[in-house]
Amino acid sequence: MSMNAGIFGLGSMGYGMAQSCLRAGLNVHGFDVMPDPVTRFVSEGGKHGRIADVAPALDAIVVVVLNAAQVESVLFGAEGVVPQLRENAVVMACATVPPEFAKDMERKCNAYGVHYLDAPISGGAVKAAKGQLSIMASGSAAAFTALSPVLDATAETVFRLSDAAGAGSAMKAVNQLLAGVHIAAMAEALTFGMTQGITPATFIEVITKCAGNSWMLENRAPHIVAGDYTPQSQVNIWPKDLGIVLETAKASGFHAPITETALAQYQRAVEMGLGGEDDAAVAKVYAQNVGLDLPDDQS
Amino acid sequence: MSMNAGIFGLGSMGYGMAQSCLRAGLNVHGFDVMPDPVTRFVSEGGKHGRIADVAPALDAIVVVVLNAAQVESVLFGAEGVVPQLRENAVVMACATVPPEFAKDMERKCNAYGVHYLDAPISGGAVKAAKGQLSIMASGSAAAFTALSPVLDATAETVFRLSDAAGAGSAMKAVNQLLAGVHIAAMAEALTFGMTQGITPATFIEVITKCAGNSWMLENRAPHIVAGDYTPQSQVNIWPKDLGIVLETAKASGFHAPITETALAQYQRAVEMGLGGEDDAAVAKVYAQNVGLDLPDDQS
Repeated sequence: MSMNAGIFGLGSMGYGMAQSCLRAGLNVHGFDVMPDPVTRFVSEGGKHGRIADVAPALDAIVVVVLNAAQVESVLFGAEGVVPQLRENAVVMACATVPPEFAKDMERKCNAYGVHYLDAPISGGAVKAAKGQLSIMASGSAAAFTALSPVLDATAETVFRLSDAAGAGSAMKAVNQLLAGVHIAAMAEALTFGMTQGITPATFIEVITKCAGNSWMLENRAPHIVAGDYTPQSQVNIWPKDLGIVLETAKASGFHAPITETALAQYQRAVEMGLGGEDDAAVAKVYAQNVGLDLPDDQS
Repeated sequence: MSMNAGIFGLGSMGYGMAQSCLRAGLNVHGFDVMPDPVTRFVSEGGKHGRIADVAPALDAIVVVVLNAAQVESVLFGAEGVVPQLRENAVVMACATVPPEFAKDMERKCNAYGVHYLDAPISGGAVKAAKGQLSIMASGSAAAFTALSPVLDATAETVFRLSDAAGAGSAMKAVNQLLAGVHIAAMAEALTFGMTQGITPATFIEVITKCAGNSWMLENRAPHIVAGDYTPQSQVNIWPKDLGIVLETAKASGFHAPITETALAQYQRAVEMGLGGEDDAAVAKVYAQNVGLDLPDDQS
């Protein structure tokens, strides 16, 4: 009998994961605060219903929302799903959250006899849709076992980091430190190059063959060349995620000056009204500082 | 008849380039202030002689020294080689230098009837030895043509950025901005991860599969896992190269706060006496700040 899974959050990542689960033959219920992605998901073979009706039959829920507050609301809010789950059901929590929050959620789920996997994801919307994510996971052996059909359907690589929640979110914070710094550094280098007569297109052509390359540079710099800031991942993500890094670092007495400096550029972008644009728009902060014109939208 | 080339500077990059030129059948003279690499090069089929005796017969010289002062000394110092070259000989200048300095060297070489290629390199010692460098080149068509046997022998990719000196060095400054920031960000993220219980080995295993990856992280983080700070590229490089970035940026009214913050970490490493170690030793700055023990030397 195929697993009953509920995906909470049908944004760019959650929708792709839900599709991957459908493709793998799972019985998938989709939930979102917006009606449109739910309607689309049902038209593609997904299921939907009132949480109170569906929850008792679910074997696993996957929570792919924006932040810790939304995770807590889905799991334990007014219509919280965890108290309605059967014993030994399992929660897979994919949002980027502080490690201490993940530990707290694990404790609360366990109190209801529900397993919990701290399972932040990396790879972007395209890999989510293909079932090729990297998952930084930590939790009990029972949580991993109960979720294996979902992990098989959604991940290319599952890192099993520890037997308790916290390690997955800590690793995600480390990844976000680098990813956030690398996007801002790309913006700094690309606009610096423009002041020296190097076009953004030449910047990409050369740097992707040189030691200055990064995953984020390859992924985001083309948005600047195209002048297309349609949000694949918003500027607004970074004050949140780098905030988690710095809050976690501070609690350990760790000073992260490069992260702080990158965060300041994203905060400036938000002040400029760019929070809802693609995060490559952090380049506009540098362009404005020095009076450069970035490429216009080519679409 | 095979080209007569002189390689000035037989350090880790220059030696590999000299070997690659030999392998390609060029007639190669090696020069260095230290006797050992010259002796070794001659034992491998290279040539050596007094500059005054050799210079008039050279078609091309390749300058692979540490900084602008050394380039100027090789070309126009007390025993400067340029005034001794034949007309239409060519200089390939590979050091990381300010774009304005490259333009000045081009003017001075041209005044002697000598062509000049602004040709900074990227790729590291292993690729230098294999003849697989990326070269960020700008200069006259005559300079490119005259150097084509050397470029073919040493490079996998030659970027032809402009028909005058300056653009090559500007692109190298952009690359060094990113490379320097990425090494320091790797150190910040790796040590932050350690405060959260993530070992350096797990850090590499996971991040190289995730969006936080960079060329420099893959290349340098293993030195920290091995506890081996034998200099493949020294900490001392970065105050120099990021200094060139910031000096060039300042002249254009460009503010580069992430570069400044990374530079501060390298300066602190130099103050700690780590200038001669591999640049991955910038992690020791973070480790000292928070009282962490990095892995010991496993060799």
